[in-house]
Amino acid sequence: MDKNCLFCKIIKGEIKAKIAYENEKVFAFYDINPQAPTHVLIIPKLHISGAPEIDDNNRTVVSDLIIAANEIARQSGIDKTGYRLVLNCGPDAGQAVFHLHLHLLGGRKLNWPPG
Amino acid sequence: MDKNCLFCKIIKGEIKAKIAYENEKVFAFYDINPQAPTHVLIIPKLHISGAPEIDDNNRTVVSDLIIAANEIARQSGIDKTGYRLVLNCGPDAGQAVFHLHLHLLGGRKLNWPPG
Repeated sequence: MDKNCLFCKIIKGEIKAKIAYENEKVFAFYDINPQAPTHVLIIPKLHISGAPEIDDNNRTVVSDLIIAANEIARQSGIDKTGYRLVLNCGPDAGQAVFHLHLHLLGGRKLNWPPG
Repeated sequence: MDKNCLFCKIIKGEIKAKIAYENEKVFAFYDINPQAPTHVLIIPKLHISGAPEIDDNNRTVVSDLIIAANEIARQSGIDKTGYRLVLNCGPDAGQAVFHLHLHLLGGRKLNWPPG
């Protein structure tokens, strides 16, 4: 936990969010500025700044997020229609919060390029 | 390996691609229709249809892709400027090849929404 991190505060309940999913290691909530009918942010309870920090020592963190995303897609009824998973890394990607978060978007046709 | 899979054929060298990176488990090549100055597809050598197939039994596959993406970003000189990682899952995301592939895009400002 990082006491100054927005997403750590959401995990602790200090800042409210609409919860989409939770398990022992993962927390997920609806994006406050949704870009698709289903737009969920899936984050590890462990504070990691972003995907660039993933290496052999913490590699299970990112697979936990993907597995949770698949479960949320099933629960949201978009597993058959499809969904996009996005990790923004650093300034050119517009990463706004430096706590690793996987975007899950679905419920509409998603365009190409992805931004 | 799936003998009818385009990406399995690329791994075997039966179809040519411009290789960006390779290790024991991962193969990466430049997208034939690049959407950014750096646009690489990172795939597992194991044939898996897509991210929805990731579960507790094959979870290391997806973390292998992320760790490789971080290495390719460093080699491409976009680790500081930033990059976006994208997994397309099924029809609404426009998944065209049913062999798991992680898109790495960087070298320009990426827009929002991601498609």
